[in-house]
Amino acid sequence: SKEFNPIDHPHRRYNPLTGDWILVSPHRAKRPWQGQVEKTATDNRPTHDPDCYLCPGNERITGDSNPDYTRPYVFANDFPALLTDTPDADGDSDLFRSSGARGEARVICFSPDHSKTLPQLSVEEIRQVVDVWSEQVTELGNQYPWVQLFENKGAVMGCSNPHPHGQVWASSFLPNEARKEDDNQRQWLTDKRSNMLVEYALKESESGERTVVENDDWIAVVPYWAAWPFETLLLPKRHILRMPDLKDSERTTLADILKRLTTRYDNLFQTSFPYSMGWHGAPTEQGDCAQENHEHWQLHAHFYPPLLRSATVRKFMVGFEMLAESQRDLTAEQAAERLRNLSETHYLNV
Amino acid sequence: SKEFNPIDHPHRRYNPLTGDWILVSPHRAKRPWQGQVEKTATDNRPTHDPDCYLCPGNERITGDSNPDYTRPYVFANDFPALLTDTPDADGDSDLFRSSGARGEARVICFSPDHSKTLPQLSVEEIRQVVDVWSEQVTELGNQYPWVQLFENKGAVMGCSNPHPHGQVWASSFLPNEARKEDDNQRQWLTDKRSNMLVEYALKESESGERTVVENDDWIAVVPYWAAWPFETLLLPKRHILRMPDLKDSERTTLADILKRLTTRYDNLFQTSFPYSMGWHGAPTEQGDCAQENHEHWQLHAHFYPPLLRSATVRKFMVGFEMLAESQRDLTAEQAAERLRNLSETHYLNV
Ligand SMILES: O=P(O)(O)O[C@H]1O[C@H](CO)[C@@H](O)[C@H](O)[C@H]1O
Ligand SMILES: O=P(O)(O)O[C@H]1O[C@H](CO)[C@@H](O)[C@H](O)[C@H]1O
Repeated sequence: SKEFNPIDHPHRRYNPLTGDWILVSPHRAKRPWQGQVEKTATDNRPTHDPDCYLCPGNERITGDSNPDYTRPYVFANDFPALLTDTPDADGDSDLFRSSGARGEARVICFSPDHSKTLPQLSVEEIRQVVDVWSEQVTELGNQYPWVQLFENKGAVMGCSNPHPHGQVWASSFLPNEARKEDDNQRQWLTDKRSNMLVEYALKESESGERTVVENDDWIAVVPYWAAWPFETLLLPKRHILRMPDLKDSERTTLADILKRLTTRYDNLFQTSFPYSMGWHGAPTEQGDCAQENHEHWQLHAHFYPPLLRSATVRKFMVGFEMLAESQRDLTAEQAAERLRNLSETHYLNV
Repeated sequence: SKEFNPIDHPHRRYNPLTGDWILVSPHRAKRPWQGQVEKTATDNRPTHDPDCYLCPGNERITGDSNPDYTRPYVFANDFPALLTDTPDADGDSDLFRSSGARGEARVICFSPDHSKTLPQLSVEEIRQVVDVWSEQVTELGNQYPWVQLFENKGAVMGCSNPHPHGQVWASSFLPNEARKEDDNQRQWLTDKRSNMLVEYALKESESGERTVVENDDWIAVVPYWAAWPFETLLLPKRHILRMPDLKDSERTTLADILKRLTTRYDNLFQTSFPYSMGWHGAPTEQGDCAQENHEHWQLHAHFYPPLLRSATVRKFMVGFEMLAESQRDLTAEQAAERLRNLSETHYLNV
C-alpha cells in the first residue's frame, strides 16, 4: 500500500483549541475557478476624507464630532450589538433556551491617517495601538469577564469603512469560542500538566516548518490545524495570560511582529490583504469567571484571511464547510512557506 | 427594573443541536450600511448554454461529455476534495494530530434546463431530485458512514456555475457538525427519553410563531436559535432516520414544501435567493458507526442564506462572529413572520 504523504493525500487535522477537525485536500489546489471574483482595494485614498465618519474632526451619524485626534482614538460604537442595561431574559425551557446578555462595543481608530492600514504604520504607531488594546482590556475587564478585541479588514470581511480601525466588544458572558478554548486549555493542563499553547509555540519555534515570522518574544505560525488558507496564530513565547501583562519591551516587539506579518500578507497577492483578526486571553475575574483559576490560558491572536489564490479569488466556507467540516486546499506547511519567502518591505514602497 | 422584551433587548439563544449559543441584537437592525454590496443574479439565462460544463451534451474539463440527460443527472466531481484510495495518515502526536480521510464527491444536476433554479422547477421535477438524493444516500451509505447532500446557490455562496445543481460528498468519518448533532441528539434521548427534533417540530407546529410553511408531512421554521438572518430548518413531522426511509407520498410533499419555501425566499428580496442548504440524517451503519444505535436522530435540512436586508446587503459573519459568537440583527420570530407573509407565486411569474 502507498505511503502517506500530506501534500498529496487528503487527511484531517485536529484543532486542540476548539476541538474541531479540518479536512485538508492539498491535491485540490489545481481546481480551476469560474466563480465570483472580489473587487481589489483601491490604494489611493486621501489622508483625510471629509465623508469618513472615522476621520479626525468629522461628524458621525449621531451628531457627535470626532476630536482632532493624533494618536489611536476610541469611542462608543454608535450601533452596538450589546447594551449595558439589558434586563435578564425570560425563564428557559429545554427547547427554547435563552439567557441575558449585557456588554459594550467600542470602535478603535488605529491612526488619524485615512490612507493607511496597519502594515503602513510605523512600529511606534502600532505600539500605540497595542497600548490602547491593553488599556481597553484593563478598563472593560473590570466589569466584564470577556473583552473581545478584533479588526475586520477589507470590504470582503464586512468592513464598511477603509479608515484603519478595529473594535472591542465586552460581554457579560463567555462567548462560544472563548468557552471552547477555556474548556480545551483547562483539560490539557489537567491531563498533561503543561500549558497547551506555551508548549505549542516552543515546538513550532524548534521546527520552523510552519513559522512565518519570529522575534525575541513572539512567533507567528500557520497553525498545523489552520482552516483558512493563510490563517495564522500569533503567540508570545513565554506564558502570558492577558494583554495588560505584557512588559514594555514585549509591546514593542509585538508592534514589530504585527508590522512584519501584515506586510507579508499585503505582499502575498500585492493587495491590501483582507482578514478578520482578534485577541484571545484569559477571561477576566468577573461575573461567572470570578472564582476561576486561569493558568491554563495563553494569550494569542488569530488572523483569519479569506483569500486563496489571488487578490480576487477567495476561499468560500459554504455548503460542505457549513454543514459538515472546514476544508482547505493547501497544507499549513505550504502556506507558511509561501508567507515565509516574501519580503518584509511593503510592495507599495518598492 | 424593566421587563425583558425579545425584540428590544439583546439576549443569547441556545442551539441544542450543536451546543452553541447565538447573540441576538434586534435593536441593531437600524444600523446603516455603507459597506460591500453584492451583485444581483441576472435572471435571463438561456435554457442551454454552450459554455456551461453542466448542460446536457457539453464537454467537461476532463474531456468527458455529459449525456443528453432529461432528468437529474449525477457524475463524479472532477475536482473531489476526498478520494477513495487515500492511505492512512501518519501516527498522531498530541499537538500535531491527524487522521485518514477517504470518500467520494459527486455533482447532481437538478435539471437539464440551464435557466431554472429549484423554485422554478415543477413539483414533479423537484420530486425527481428528491429521489436522486435518496438513491445517493443508499448507494454511498453502503460504503461510508456519512453522506453529505448539499447545494451552494448563488455566486456569493461560492457557487461557480448558475446551472441548477447540488453536490454529495461521502466520507469515511463523521464530520464536525455531524459529530456534534450526533452527540447532542443522543444525550437528549438519554436525558429526556424523547427525540429532540420530533418534539421540536411538534412544538413549533403547535405555536406557529416561527413557522414559514407547513404541509401534511413537513414543517419549515426559522429555528428559535437561528444564526443567519433568514435561516430555516426543514423537518418531517414523524420520526425518520434517513432520506431513503421516506414513503412515496412524503417524497411528493417534500417536493411541495421545497418549492414553496424556495419561492418565498426568492420573493423576499425579489432576487434568486442565495444560500447553502443540506441534509443531515442518521449516519449509515458503516465503519466507526457500524455498531451504533441511531434512534436519537431525526432527518432534517438546514438552509443558510446570507442576505440580511436586500438583494445586495448581506450579513457578514466576521470578526466577533469568527472569534467569539454568531450574532444576528433580527429575531427568529421577526424573520419567520416576514417569510410567512410572502406569496407562493414566484415573483418572475406575476
Ligand atoms: O466544488 P465547488 O462547488 O466548486 O466549490 C464550492 O463548494 C465547496 C463545498 O462546499 C467549497 O469547498 C468551495 O470553497 C466552494 O467554492
Ligand atoms: O460593526 P460593523 O463593523 O459595521 O460590522 C461588521 O462587524 C461586526 C462584528 O464582527 C459584524 O457583526 C457585522 O456583520 C460586520 O458587518
